[in-house]
Amino acid sequence: MKHDAIVIGGGPAGIISAVTAKRDHPDKNVLLIKSIGDGVIPCGIPYIFKTLEDPKCDEMGNAPLEKNSIDLKVDEVTGIDTGKKTVSTRGGETIGYDKLVIATGSNPLAPPIGGIDKKGIHTIKKQLSYLQSLKEEVKKAKSIVIVGGGFIGVEFADELALLKQENPELLITLVELMPEILSTFDKEFSALAHEALKQKGVSIITGVKVTEFNGDEHVKSVSLSDGQKLDADVVILGMGARPNSALAENAGLEIGEKKGIVVDEYQRTSNRDIYAAGDCAQKADLVTGKPNNIMLASTATYEARIAGHNLFGLVKDGSPMKNKGAIATYSTQIGDVVLGSAGLTEDMATKQEIDIVTSTAEAADKHPNRMPGANNVKVKLVFKKETGTIIGGQVSGGHSAGEIVNIIGIAVHEKMTCEQIGLLQLATHPKLTAAPTVYPVITAAQAALQKMKND
Amino acid sequence: MKHDAIVIGGGPAGIISAVTAKRDHPDKNVLLIKSIGDGVIPCGIPYIFKTLEDPKCDEMGNAPLEKNSIDLKVDEVTGIDTGKKTVSTRGGETIGYDKLVIATGSNPLAPPIGGIDKKGIHTIKKQLSYLQSLKEEVKKAKSIVIVGGGFIGVEFADELALLKQENPELLITLVELMPEILSTFDKEFSALAHEALKQKGVSIITGVKVTEFNGDEHVKSVSLSDGQKLDADVVILGMGARPNSALAENAGLEIGEKKGIVVDEYQRTSNRDIYAAGDCAQKADLVTGKPNNIMLASTATYEARIAGHNLFGLVKDGSPMKNKGAIATYSTQIGDVVLGSAGLTEDMATKQEIDIVTSTAEAADKHPNRMPGANNVKVKLVFKKETGTIIGGQVSGGHSAGEIVNIIGIAVHEKMTCEQIGLLQLATHPKLTAAPTVYPVITAAQAALQKMKND
Repeated sequence: MKHDAIVIGGGPAGIISAVTAKRDHPDKNVLLIKSIGDGVIPCGIPYIFKTLEDPKCDEMGNAPLEKNSIDLKVDEVTGIDTGKKTVSTRGGETIGYDKLVIATGSNPLAPPIGGIDKKGIHTIKKQLSYLQSLKEEVKKAKSIVIVGGGFIGVEFADELALLKQENPELLITLVELMPEILSTFDKEFSALAHEALKQKGVSIITGVKVTEFNGDEHVKSVSLSDGQKLDADVVILGMGARPNSALAENAGLEIGEKKGIVVDEYQRTSNRDIYAAGDCAQKADLVTGKPNNIMLASTATYEARIAGHNLFGLVKDGSPMKNKGAIATYSTQIGDVVLGSAGLTEDMATKQEIDIVTSTAEAADKHPNRMPGANNVKVKLVFKKETGTIIGGQVSGGHSAGEIVNIIGIAVHEKMTCEQIGLLQLATHPKLTAAPTVYPVITAAQAALQKMKND
Repeated sequence: MKHDAIVIGGGPAGIISAVTAKRDHPDKNVLLIKSIGDGVIPCGIPYIFKTLEDPKCDEMGNAPLEKNSIDLKVDEVTGIDTGKKTVSTRGGETIGYDKLVIATGSNPLAPPIGGIDKKGIHTIKKQLSYLQSLKEEVKKAKSIVIVGGGFIGVEFADELALLKQENPELLITLVELMPEILSTFDKEFSALAHEALKQKGVSIITGVKVTEFNGDEHVKSVSLSDGQKLDADVVILGMGARPNSALAENAGLEIGEKKGIVVDEYQRTSNRDIYAAGDCAQKADLVTGKPNNIMLASTATYEARIAGHNLFGLVKDGSPMKNKGAIATYSTQIGDVVLGSAGLTEDMATKQEIDIVTSTAEAADKHPNRMPGANNVKVKLVFKKETGTIIGGQVSGGHSAGEIVNIIGIAVHEKMTCEQIGLLQLATHPKLTAAPTVYPVITAAQAALQKMKND
C-alpha cells in the first residue's frame, strides 16, 4: 500500500497540510493518519465545562477531510523508515509514501514534581471521551487548583469560575510561578486579566512554585514553595508544552535546541521528502529571526499551508511558498475583558535589547462615547527605533479587540512603519468602532512618529 | 490680527488638520473657525432618535481643540483674499494667515423636485439645536418617507424603525432610485440590509423616482414615478452630497470636474499657502487613480493628517507626507446585520473594465460553530487578475465584521497579493473569531490564488 502523500497528525496543522496538498495537487492521493479518533478543537477545550452545551460540540470531525477526498486512518504511527519511505503503525501496518508531512503537535509538560502521577491531576488531552469524563470529575469537585497562569490556565480558570453559579462553595485557585499571570503580555494588559479573574472569585497566587502533590492514590492537596497547602480534588496543569518530535528524532531527522523538528523556509525537514508543520516544527521569529516555540493554531495552519503547497516539489506548480517567520498573534477573553497581542511586547523587546519606541492610545470602541455598550479600547504599539518599523502591539477592550489585534498583526507581518500605520484609512462606525478622529491604532502610530521626531 | 495657520471648518477634517498642525508645529499659533457653534459628530446623527439617550450625546465639543491650545472662533468665513492673505467673516472680521486649511466639508443635495422647499422636508444639518427640533417633529409623525437608499437613508430607516416600539402605527418608507439600496455594495451584501430593514417593518420601494412633494405649506405626501403617492408628514432626504467648495472657487482656487477643490498629493491647492482636506477636496482613487468623491470621515481625517503635517513647508520638518489615494472603507449595522466594504466592489471593478478574480468564504465568527452567539461571517475579496493584487473586499457578519473590514482595508492600502493574504498569521479565539482553519479572509485569498492558477 502506498500513498503519494501521508500526513501524520489530526490537529489543525495536519488537517490544513492535507487539505492544501490535495487542493493544490488534485491528482495526488493523500492519507491522513491520526492516533485519536475522537479529537477535539484544541482552543475550544476550556469551554466544555459550561459555555458549550456539551463537550461533543467541540469535536473536530472529519468533514474537511471527506469534503476534499482525503483518506483517513485512525492509528498511531510508531516509526518512519526514510530509506524504504514507509511508515509503520501500532496497528501493524506498513504504508509507503512519496512525500510525508509530520504534524504531530506538542505534548503538555508535566515536570517531575512529587506526586504528579496521582489521580485527579490532569494534563489536558485533546480527546472527547477523556474530556467528557474530566467534565464529570470537575462537576463533583470542591477545590480545583490550576497550575500555570498562561493562556490555558487562565482560560480554564475563567470558565470554571462559571460553575460557581451552581456551586457557590467551589474553590478555584490559580498558581503561577512568575510574578504575573499571562506574562506574554506587558503588565498593564495582564493586570486586566488578573483583575477580571479575581472579580469572578478565582484566587490567584503568583511568584510561588508547586513543591508537592499530596494524597494517597488521589490528589488531596497541593504544597507551595511559600509553605501554603491548598486543598485540591482536581488539579489542572497548564505548564506549557514541548514539541512532539520523538517520531522525527527516531527517524534521524534533525532536531533543534528547543526540541522542534528543524525545517527550512519551505517547511522541509533535513530529509527532502519529509515536511513538518505546526507545534512539532521549529520556528524562526519573524522579527528577530531567532528560534522560538510559538504554539498557536494560527502559526500552525500558516506552516501547514506552506508545507501542503510545496509538498510535491518547490518549482513544480508555480513558485514555492516561503515561511517569512512566525508571529505570536493571539487573543483571549477573561470575563468581559478581551486581550490581544501580535509580535513582541515591550517586555520581550527590552529583554532582547532591541532599541524601541512604544506608544499607547485609548478611546471608546463606539462613538460618540455615550453609545450604549461602549467599552474602552487601549492599543499599545512597539516600534523599532532605528527604522520606525512596527514589531508588536497589544490591545485590550471589548469583543472587537479580537479583530483589532489582527489589524496590528498584519502591520507586523508587512513590517509597516509608524508613518504608514498613522496614515491608514480605516472604516469607522458609531455602533462598531472608535471614532475616526481617535481610532487608537492610528493615533498610537501618530504618537510614536511624534516621539521619534522629538528624540 | 494674524495667525500662523487658520483652519476653516469644525468637522473631523478641520479638527484633525488643526490638531496635527499644532502637534507637529508646536511653536505656531493655529485658529479654527467654524460656522456652527453646536456642531455634532456627523456619523452619530442617525442614532439621536432612540439609540442615544439625547441628541446632546452626539455633540462634537471642543475638547480636542482646547487640549491642543488651538484658538477657536465661531463665525462664518465669507471670503478669502489670497493676495493680502486674509479671511473675512460674516461677523465683520478680517484675519490674516500665513497658511490656510480649507475643510468646509460638503452640502447635502436637494435636487429641484417640485415642492422640495415645503416644511417637514429635511436635508440633515450637522447642528445640535436643529436635530433636537427634528427629533421632536419625528416623535409626532405618523408617516415618514426617506428618499435615498444610501448609507444615510438606510441608517435613518434602521433607527427610526425603533420608534415603532412606542408607536406601532408609524409608517416608514424608504424610496431609492436605483434597483437596490446600498448600491455601493455588491448585491449579495446589500440584499442582507434590505432583508433586515424589511424585518424591522420598513417599506422599501426601489427603482422609482420622487416626482413631487405635495401639500400646502407643510408636506403631506410624496408622488413617485410609478404613480404611487405616499403619505408623509416628515421627509428625510439622503440623496448624496456635493463638496462645499464655493469659498475656494470664489477665491480663485482650481476646482475639479466633480466640484472638489483640486489638491496635489501633499493636500496643497493651486495656491501654495492654502491646503484643503476632507469632503470639500478632490480625491484620487487609490486603485484606479481616477478622481472620486469619497465622503467619509476616515478619508477626511487621513487627508487632514497629511495637510496638518505638511502645512508649514514640505521639507521643513522631516519628510512630507504623501496622499497615496483614497479608499472608500466603511461599515454599517442594519438590525443585527453588520456590513463592511473597503476599496472596489466586483460591480465597480467590472464597470471600470478591470480584469478581476473574486472569491468568497464563509465561517462562523466563533468556534466551534456551536459557541453561543456565533454569527455567520462572509468575506468576498476582489483581486486584479493581472497581478493578484487585492483591490477591494466586503464582509457581512456580526459585530466583529466592523473590524474585519479594516483587515481587508489594510491589505488594499498595502496592495497585498492573494498569496500574501493567504499566508497571514491571524489571531483566533473560540469566543472572538472564526477558527484558524477556516478564517474567511485567509480562505478567500487562498481560493482566489487557486482560481488564478487554474485559469
